[in-house]
Amino acid sequence: MNVAIFFGSLSDKDTMAKAARALDEFEVPYQAFAISAHRLPDVLVATLKELETNGTEVIIAGAGLAAHLPGVIASKTTIPVIGVPLNGALDGLDSLLSIVQMPKDIPVATVGIDNARNAGLLAVQMLSIKYPELKEKLKQYREKLTIELTQQIHQKL
Amino acid sequence: MNVAIFFGSLSDKDTMAKAARALDEFEVPYQAFAISAHRLPDVLVATLKELETNGTEVIIAGAGLAAHLPGVIASKTTIPVIGVPLNGALDGLDSLLSIVQMPKDIPVATVGIDNARNAGLLAVQMLSIKYPELKEKLKQYREKLTIELTQQIHQKL
Amino acid sequence: MNVAIFFGSLSDKDTMAKAARALDEFEVPYQAFAISAHRLPDVLVATLKELETNGTEVIIAGAGLAAHLPGVIASKTTIPVIGVPLNGALDGLDSLLSIVQMPKDIPVATVGIDNARNAGLLAVQMLSIKYPELKEKLKQYREKLTIELTQQIHQKL
Amino acid sequence: MNVAIFFGSLSDKDTMAKAARALDEFEVPYQAFAISAHRLPDVLVATLKELETNGTEVIIAGAGLAAHLPGVIASKTTIPVIGVPLNGALDGLDSLLSIVQMPKDIPVATVGIDNARNAGLLAVQMLSIKYPELKEKLKQYREKLTIELTQQIHQKL
Amino acid sequence: MNVAIFFGSLSDKDTMAKAARALDEFEVPYQAFAISAHRLPDVLVATLKELETNGTEVIIAGAGLAAHLPGVIASKTTIPVIGVPLNGALDGLDSLLSIVQMPKDIPVATVGIDNARNAGLLAVQMLSIKYPELKEKLKQYREKLTIELTQQIHQKL
Amino acid sequence: MNVAIFFGSLSDKDTMAKAARALDEFEVPYQAFAISAHRLPDVLVATLKELETNGTEVIIAGAGLAAHLPGVIASKTTIPVIGVPLNGALDGLDSLLSIVQMPKDIPVATVGIDNARNAGLLAVQMLSIKYPELKEKLKQYREKLTIELTQQIHQKL
Amino acid sequence: MNVAIFFGSLSDKDTMAKAARALDEFEVPYQAFAISAHRLPDVLVATLKELETNGTEVIIAGAGLAAHLPGVIASKTTIPVIGVPLNGALDGLDSLLSIVQMPKDIPVATVGIDNARNAGLLAVQMLSIKYPELKEKLKQYREKLTIELTQQIHQKL
Amino acid sequence: MNVAIFFGSLSDKDTMAKAARALDEFEVPYQAFAISAHRLPDVLVATLKELETNGTEVIIAGAGLAAHLPGVIASKTTIPVIGVPLNGALDGLDSLLSIVQMPKDIPVATVGIDNARNAGLLAVQMLSIKYPELKEKLKQYREKLTIELTQQIHQKL
Repeated sequence: MNVAIFFGSLSDKDTMAKAARALDEFEVPYQAFAISAHRLPDVLVATLKELETNGTEVIIAGAGLAAHLPGVIASKTTIPVIGVPLNGALDGLDSLLSIVQMPKDIPVATVGIDNARNAGLLAVQMLSIKYPELKEKLKQYREKLTIELTQQIHQKL
Repeated sequence: MNVAIFFGSLSDKDTMAKAARALDEFEVPYQAFAISAHRLPDVLVATLKELETNGTEVIIAGAGLAAHLPGVIASKTTIPVIGVPLNGALDGLDSLLSIVQMPKDIPVATVGIDNARNAGLLAVQMLSIKYPELKEKLKQYREKLTIELTQQIHQKL
Repeated sequence: MNVAIFFGSLSDKDTMAKAARALDEFEVPYQAFAISAHRLPDVLVATLKELETNGTEVIIAGAGLAAHLPGVIASKTTIPVIGVPLNGALDGLDSLLSIVQMPKDIPVATVGIDNARNAGLLAVQMLSIKYPELKEKLKQYREKLTIELTQQIHQKL
Repeated sequence: MNVAIFFGSLSDKDTMAKAARALDEFEVPYQAFAISAHRLPDVLVATLKELETNGTEVIIAGAGLAAHLPGVIASKTTIPVIGVPLNGALDGLDSLLSIVQMPKDIPVATVGIDNARNAGLLAVQMLSIKYPELKEKLKQYREKLTIELTQQIHQKL
Repeated sequence: MNVAIFFGSLSDKDTMAKAARALDEFEVPYQAFAISAHRLPDVLVATLKELETNGTEVIIAGAGLAAHLPGVIASKTTIPVIGVPLNGALDGLDSLLSIVQMPKDIPVATVGIDNARNAGLLAVQMLSIKYPELKEKLKQYREKLTIELTQQIHQKL
Repeated sequence: MNVAIFFGSLSDKDTMAKAARALDEFEVPYQAFAISAHRLPDVLVATLKELETNGTEVIIAGAGLAAHLPGVIASKTTIPVIGVPLNGALDGLDSLLSIVQMPKDIPVATVGIDNARNAGLLAVQMLSIKYPELKEKLKQYREKLTIELTQQIHQKL
Repeated sequence: MNVAIFFGSLSDKDTMAKAARALDEFEVPYQAFAISAHRLPDVLVATLKELETNGTEVIIAGAGLAAHLPGVIASKTTIPVIGVPLNGALDGLDSLLSIVQMPKDIPVATVGIDNARNAGLLAVQMLSIKYPELKEKLKQYREKLTIELTQQIHQKL
Repeated sequence: MNVAIFFGSLSDKDTMAKAARALDEFEVPYQAFAISAHRLPDVLVATLKELETNGTEVIIAGAGLAAHLPGVIASKTTIPVIGVPLNGALDGLDSLLSIVQMPKDIPVATVGIDNARNAGLLAVQMLSIKYPELKEKLKQYREKLTIELTQQIHQKL
């Protein structure tokens, strides 16, 4: 079981770390790579080839502006790719559209703007198709969430 | 191996059939349900409970306007949910934002507006984590795509 | 006479308190609930059933991002639901469209982005259909507003 | 029991008739007025004064472009006003924002773009606060909806 | 020669003062009024009637959100009305569309978001149709502008 | 008394003719010029110089896409310029922003997208500052409008 | 002297042919390639390597939706790349932002939505830096344009 | 070899200096001019005539709001013009559309919002068509970028 987290620039690191934290909660191992689709295209290809052989089962990729990284990765592998639009301009609308509007045949599983935590959780849900222990942990997580949130239902405004 | 395809209204049927066609190409079985999140909420819950026990491993859900169906489904199951924003107004921007901007903890794997085919392919990619024969078919599909598209590279304008 | 105020997350509390303050001005009693449509779906259903029997006559619901809470509530009750789009990203445009663009048959009475005070006032106006004393108070409120604002008409720029 | 339906121009008539049809289904009587907020301001004021005395309990108002009609009506009465943004340009975004973004103190209960049917249903829901027979009819309507939609759940794609 | 400056709320005062400053530069007298179209509709009508008789020749009106003030004024007078969209939400897009997209027959001369200075200058240009001395001053102003800006053409980056 | 109507391309002619029709109704003479700001810049300058001396008192200019024509004209004259955004792409949003968002010191009086009729009426209102007979005609026009629209107030939906 | 024209799918061919027609007018030779950045990534790399050695001096690339083709090409060569956003959804806004918002270090020279003719002309302008005969032809082209457009300046509306 | 950098107002200077820094890295000389298209139109024309004769080969122009400067320059010269949309309002969307959506025949090579560095690099790429030493330097620059970025690929989240 292995996840790879990509991001295009070091300025994206803190946001993308939220995906790592989500994976940590489910004890899913991951590797992280700062590789710009536009500035290190060849390194990206080489890294993806490696991942195909080391058992990586889900890829998470975050990028801002004209965010090509998730789509470029998706074009070079059949491992499912989760895209995280990062807000660098225009409230992140540029990045969202650059990731979610992928053409026919090459999908990217897009989550909300700057919502890297959800990318981590979605990766766990994808892995749970194969790993029953993750299915179990996800149920426990949802139950814990229910208990925590239930305690704060009644509010005084 | 089983996929469930949901859509909110019969007018979404033709677009969502493109997801079914993609699953057919990979011989992945599916069931289809026309259930509005807002107009049949209890039926939706009951149907999802059934899917949890019949081995459904990925859910695809398409909806337009204030498109809550994918998010509502995602809140009631830990099966990964793929959301397809359907264009009913505002070029589909309302639907896209209603699906992709899910809050913390409940992700929806969103694809492009009206791009149900990509939802089908993404479902196959998710299933291929567990089923090596799908991994193989995906590679063949990409290779076939490469060959077909390679034949039309040189164009006279 | 009773109003229920819902919001999806504790971070929405301060904004939604403005609805409570408006109700206070008209001495309309209310209960407040922090219940996420996505993270506590079953608790939400149970709470709404209770409200149907305790005489709740208007529901106010605020949410941000892919804001499903008002629409999900509206789908489970015939009590009129007022939706407050909260700005969590994209200046609140995602939330506005997720609330106002409800499909045929399940309306949500939407007010402006972050404008919870207007939600409170709209609730009073709805209740005034039945309660003549509120009709009277609303007229007095408008008259007081007129007097206050009239005092500041002449301005020196 | 009485509803008033306003619209700004004869070209809005067909869309606004959907609100009338919804009221018909619940046997709620209504009057309809074609009065532009900008071109007949004095007639509008006179008509609203009349409505205050003839027992009108909910007002529905539809308008396109810089859609001021619902807000202008709301400023002159404390009867709750439901606004219907009509698509005349920019996919109706101009009209939506002109109606929903009302300032503090003067709310308009906004429904979706061109969704006049939902305005009619919302009016019925508001009236049901006072009239128990409408509460009953709304429940029957939802049940009928459930039965009809339940029959078409299973779809072959 | 007389200009009237309207704005809907005291929070708009500082921005609208820039229109007054532009009028001051051209020695054009003005009166300023803080009158909300929605909260003081009758006062607004009365004030406009007065202006018709006191020789007011141009009206400037600024408003934010669902900015109806300029359009409502324009519907009640044939004095040309200059609208200033003020940024209160959505970067001012709601206000811009609420002002500029006026329907057939009732135009508002719209300037840029928060650009009250240009509203003042536009008022001077309109008045210069009648008053040759303003025509002259406008030419001098442009020439002064040219001289000032010419001094800073050569820049070292 | 004289108005000049400019447009950037022959494809804009039919829409801009609506401005001419409005001027005709008020017997205001005009000249029309098809001059692209970008493709005939020198001709534009020469034409504007002529207008300064032939008594032109208002200029109307329509353009689509990156619509510079109204702003470029405004920069070369102190005659008030009315800008008409024409829909050539993006529902006319590009044109609207290119015209209305003029920087400090050079205003353009912008009307709604494709709303050339309102540009014509606004020109008449500007001229009425100087010409009392136009003031009178505008009042008659509004009264006629009132009478016509009053006849169609009561509608059967 | 050589230009290469890329587009991602055969459905883009007719629009991109307008770039070819502009090059034809200036007798600039070109080659055209239908290569999807996402579906034929390796063929794209190979083709670009060839172009580096065959004297290609400008590249034009058109794509729709999440339009990565121009940016991906720009990342693999230092030949200047002109991007043409093609309207496939959302009026082409997705494509425009996916092309123009390229991150630091890898620029794409973006032209207007569907405006492939301007891409061809821009290529000629870039080549004219090196080739004085193109400089001359561009001047003649502008002069011809001036003459043609000058003949249609005076219009009767 | 010579580049000219234009900007419309002194407030744009700091952002546009990033274009100058990029040119410095490649030892490409430049001149900078603060000239508003709207406030100094005649100076702009005179300056452009000078540039035609002093060997200027690329022009960079940045502007905000209704950003006409790049397009106006492009209409007066056949030297290729690079446009930089500057964020002055609406997150820079107004400026982007005012620059990139140029009509047929007069292209502007547009880069990302506030991305003046990319304008500088694009100018170098255009010049490299003629100057082989720049071609060489661009390759070295990309290689250096590759080496730097390669050192930070492996990240710990």
